[in-house]
Amino acid sequence: MSDSYLAIPPILGVLGLFVALGIYLVVINFPEGDEKVKKIGDQIHLGAMTFMKKEYTYLSIFALVVIVLVYFSPLGEDTALAVLAGALSSSIAGWIGMYSATKANVRTATAASQSGAESALSVAFYGGSIMGLCVASLGLIGLGSLYYILSGDAHSIEGFAMGASIVALFSRVGGGIYTKSADVGADLVGKLEAGIPEDDPRNPGVIADNVGDNVGDIAGMGSDIFESYCGSMVACIAIASTLAIADREGMMFLPLSLASLGLISSILGIIIVRAFSNSSPALSMRIGTIAAPIIFVAAAYFVINILVKEMGTTVLFGTVLSKAQEIWLAVVCGSAGGIAIGLITEYYTGSKPIVKIAESGQTGPATVMITGLSVGMQSVVLPIACLILIIYISTQLTDLYGVGIAAVGMLSTVGITMAIDAYGPVADNAGGIAEMADMPSETREITDELDEQGNTTAAIGKGFAIGAAALAALAIIAAFVSSVSSKRGVPLELMLDNPIVLIGIFIGGAIPFLIASITMTAVGDAAFEMINEIRRQFKEIPGLLEGNAEPDTAKCVDIATSAALKKMLLPGVIAVSAPPLVGLGIGAEALGGMLAGGLLVCVLMALFMANAGGAWDNAKKYIEKGNLGGKGTDTHSAAVVGDTVGDPFKDTSGPSMNILINVMAIVSLVIAPLLS
Amino acid sequence: MSDSYLAIPPILGVLGLFVALGIYLVVINFPEGDEKVKKIGDQIHLGAMTFMKKEYTYLSIFALVVIVLVYFSPLGEDTALAVLAGALSSSIAGWIGMYSATKANVRTATAASQSGAESALSVAFYGGSIMGLCVASLGLIGLGSLYYILSGDAHSIEGFAMGASIVALFSRVGGGIYTKSADVGADLVGKLEAGIPEDDPRNPGVIADNVGDNVGDIAGMGSDIFESYCGSMVACIAIASTLAIADREGMMFLPLSLASLGLISSILGIIIVRAFSNSSPALSMRIGTIAAPIIFVAAAYFVINILVKEMGTTVLFGTVLSKAQEIWLAVVCGSAGGIAIGLITEYYTGSKPIVKIAESGQTGPATVMITGLSVGMQSVVLPIACLILIIYISTQLTDLYGVGIAAVGMLSTVGITMAIDAYGPVADNAGGIAEMADMPSETREITDELDEQGNTTAAIGKGFAIGAAALAALAIIAAFVSSVSSKRGVPLELMLDNPIVLIGIFIGGAIPFLIASITMTAVGDAAFEMINEIRRQFKEIPGLLEGNAEPDTAKCVDIATSAALKKMLLPGVIAVSAPPLVGLGIGAEALGGMLAGGLLVCVLMALFMANAGGAWDNAKKYIEKGNLGGKGTDTHSAAVVGDTVGDPFKDTSGPSMNILINVMAIVSLVIAPLLS
Repeated sequence: MSDSYLAIPPILGVLGLFVALGIYLVVINFPEGDEKVKKIGDQIHLGAMTFMKKEYTYLSIFALVVIVLVYFSPLGEDTALAVLAGALSSSIAGWIGMYSATKANVRTATAASQSGAESALSVAFYGGSIMGLCVASLGLIGLGSLYYILSGDAHSIEGFAMGASIVALFSRVGGGIYTKSADVGADLVGKLEAGIPEDDPRNPGVIADNVGDNVGDIAGMGSDIFESYCGSMVACIAIASTLAIADREGMMFLPLSLASLGLISSILGIIIVRAFSNSSPALSMRIGTIAAPIIFVAAAYFVINILVKEMGTTVLFGTVLSKAQEIWLAVVCGSAGGIAIGLITEYYTGSKPIVKIAESGQTGPATVMITGLSVGMQSVVLPIACLILIIYISTQLTDLYGVGIAAVGMLSTVGITMAIDAYGPVADNAGGIAEMADMPSETREITDELDEQGNTTAAIGKGFAIGAAALAALAIIAAFVSSVSSKRGVPLELMLDNPIVLIGIFIGGAIPFLIASITMTAVGDAAFEMINEIRRQFKEIPGLLEGNAEPDTAKCVDIATSAALKKMLLPGVIAVSAPPLVGLGIGAEALGGMLAGGLLVCVLMALFMANAGGAWDNAKKYIEKGNLGGKGTDTHSAAVVGDTVGDPFKDTSGPSMNILINVMAIVSLVIAPLLS
Repeated sequence: MSDSYLAIPPILGVLGLFVALGIYLVVINFPEGDEKVKKIGDQIHLGAMTFMKKEYTYLSIFALVVIVLVYFSPLGEDTALAVLAGALSSSIAGWIGMYSATKANVRTATAASQSGAESALSVAFYGGSIMGLCVASLGLIGLGSLYYILSGDAHSIEGFAMGASIVALFSRVGGGIYTKSADVGADLVGKLEAGIPEDDPRNPGVIADNVGDNVGDIAGMGSDIFESYCGSMVACIAIASTLAIADREGMMFLPLSLASLGLISSILGIIIVRAFSNSSPALSMRIGTIAAPIIFVAAAYFVINILVKEMGTTVLFGTVLSKAQEIWLAVVCGSAGGIAIGLITEYYTGSKPIVKIAESGQTGPATVMITGLSVGMQSVVLPIACLILIIYISTQLTDLYGVGIAAVGMLSTVGITMAIDAYGPVADNAGGIAEMADMPSETREITDELDEQGNTTAAIGKGFAIGAAALAALAIIAAFVSSVSSKRGVPLELMLDNPIVLIGIFIGGAIPFLIASITMTAVGDAAFEMINEIRRQFKEIPGLLEGNAEPDTAKCVDIATSAALKKMLLPGVIAVSAPPLVGLGIGAEALGGMLAGGLLVCVLMALFMANAGGAWDNAKKYIEKGNLGGKGTDTHSAAVVGDTVGDPFKDTSGPSMNILINVMAIVSLVIAPLLS
């Protein structure tokens, strides 16, 4: 076999981008709507792109500093190149995704009003698919080309994941602060004080709120998934590179091949969703998301058998498995585990628990808070059990490489998972546009149905993202340990009763709380500014509440943008600098402990915050559907308080946790050669 | 030196009990007040003692099962005896403390109305001192006698801490559920719905609320501290017993000698507080709490030098320290660390952060929640830094024995720390009684001042309890590792990259979230029952709100009692059974991982919940003092929501975390010989 097969992943990636371009052309051909709709759509689009531009300016400076440091460190120019490639690939994916999503939202609203549900679903889902395909394709192009160019030099390639994780950090944290300061600010004054409905055009914060949905859930989420996707591949490459076996090269290339298969399966899945879109949106998306991993898992069996030839050691039903079969089972385990975590998340954010939270609203906001916090805490138990099972099974099959490949299995079909994730904010935006443009109530009904479906898929997506991030981080940590050990020539012993390891564990546990606190405070502070601005406009602009004057929405967009950019720096600096400080300052043992403590606490806090937030959100929606008295009751007001607290939980601090542990892990892996 | 010195700790313990008896006689000689006051006092006293009786019935059954299992297991009868001794000592301390506190509260109120602030402070502080001295004395009597009888058989003695921890588990969890279901229930209906002030005699839940303060903050807190106090001593004994050095016996006996010194220092501290009580309450208590550890630390230097004779290895300022000096420095480090953690807690629950929370009330309850959660998260960072420093310094000085002896250093002056802790609820109750008995407003002013001081000391006490519990648990975990290693003959290797250890870490991290969720839910459910009952009484008892009829307070006491007892079982069973299930089911490596993960997450969650809760509470009080518009404003209502959520945080779920990790650690240590 010549080395030319190494070119397959980037070529498939380019193909994926062409499919995305095709979908974009389809989307753009849908009618944009009348002047009023267009104007609102343009405001959102412009607000989003302005934010992206400013964010990327900050990001470039930060990334440049990191790249220069890496370049002049003993890590050298190949690693610096990889960091640049990773940062660029992720940024481009985010940019294209945002650009397309903010073109699709207005067309979804218009399609809902002009052609009905089926065509609205198509536009919204297509809009999301572009982001999904970009993430999958650019990951393959970037990482695949790098692998080809550096001929599999595992260590330099790690820089790619580091570049991606820096982008993710800023997009998630900055995007999270943006979206929630706008949302909390607009809701608190608009709904509770002025008594006007959500997305009412009179509310000065409403454009910022809609921009925020894109900034947080499209760009932020996309970069998060991109980072786990590449991180898990890089971890597998790194672990495999330290193995002294005949299949070493095959096992190093395997994650890229699986991701290539995943991209093809995702494209097939997207076609399937489209084909079923005349049935219910819920059903067609469910069929698509189930079909893609099934196709992927089946095809993976053959690909793994081509790349890995040795015999394994596991005995199952009296037969010794081949190494390929062991790896395949780890892939299946990861894929199934991802679905299981998603379904558990769906239960906690959409079933009995939300009714319980809604009912507790009858005794006021305090009991809504207590019940929601308790649901959130409980909701970590089963996903953790899934992770434990995945870790146990995959390591029994094929050691720590198994954890990495399980993560790759979970993330390979990222094209469709991310498409369905990104569909949510597009549909949500479409609803907002319909409301702002005063479209008829039938249009709102269609967008509401699409939006509701989007909320569930977003919740599942979040659970999935946390599970994937946890496994990816664990694999990266394992790669870190191998890397330090092979550098030292003796194993890095991370013994729990070594005080230095313990100190690291405590440091690692405290950092997520610090970051969560900083991001929560950032949302609180920015929302406070926003609230004061909205109150000021209601007071000072004559005729605004009566609908006779226009609000100054640009001012609110500015507040959210500058707050997000200002406040994302500190968490970013902490996350990136903690590993070198601890690793070079105290030692590799402390850094290993820090990663373990950080992993545990980040996963727990991420699940807790995401699920509590999702449950509060849906409890409020449950009441708004007319249960327990419906809108306007005290029970509803109590639920709105829960939802408002849940906003930064689920969309700012919670998602920051995924990134935090991945950034810390990948930075540690990259600096491993510098640790004595 | 004959073995007769081994009798000193229990003899000093008996002496301490006599001092407590003397103080009790002083308290009981203060006038109880008029009929109305007496009746209220009796209701609280009876409610508290009824709860204790019922709780101890449940507890006996549970403890009996554990004792029988231990007796018939290979652990044998000495361990079973030790478990019994530990459970009995802790229960007796709790019983005496509760009995005296509920005699002191009514006398404090009467003293405030008849003789003024100085004498009210005396009674309240004396009431708390009885609990403090009982904890310190019964620990010395129980553990000291056992050490004497079993001639230092380290392994059997471990059972003592296990017995104590089972009592602590039930007292803290049961007490926490009781106190907060009553508090939340009474507040939500009374203050918010009926618009009557706190502790108003028309509120049917008011007696249960006042009983709850004793059940949670006297009996619960006492058993918690008792457990850490004995746990840290037991851990030192266990670690020292595995050392093969000449000073082995001296180092095993050292914790008991330090605790004896601590008891004497505490008695001196109590005398000092009394001597200064004609100055301000704040000042006199501060002088006492600072004087006691100073006396202790100075005296400890001489005692350690008598028991430990070898040379150490640490070089400080060019001199090689003796082992005694090393140990003494670890004690100093623990003692100073405890004070530092207390002061940090005081900052977060009484300084700028509470003003920030209060101000966020201007934009409603949601921002109060967001700010409070963020303050709570941030507040973990510095205490964790203190713990890291203590761990680092003490292990550098004298390995893991150092962590244990630092914990002993922190906890030795438990007599006065606990006295000041227990003073709070006595003063709080006195305020409640003054309100219910319609005493003049000057009396309320005195009790309010005492109560406010009590809130601060309680917050400091909580921070201190968490720090102490963390160190004690860590020392017990270290003892567990030594114990399994010496049983196996090869070291128990808890490597972080061993998947089995990792699985344990995840299990250990998930359990605290599960227990926190169960206890939060329990409070929510019980409060819901309470709310419905109070609403029913307001509706169905004619003339109640007008003050012409009496509420059925006993019914509310019953609801809180049965809810607490019913709901404390599940967390208890989980905490006690998790170590044998994981240890025997998966292995000692998984159990070691579980303890590490559990320790990290329990400490973080305990700090987070205790400090967030304390900060919300004091933010509300800050507004009630007239800031930001004072009582009756929307800002105040928003702050009340924060306080209500904070109640189960700081008094139920948070404190459960301390116990949880200590129970899991000590059960693991006790079953260590059973693990292969």
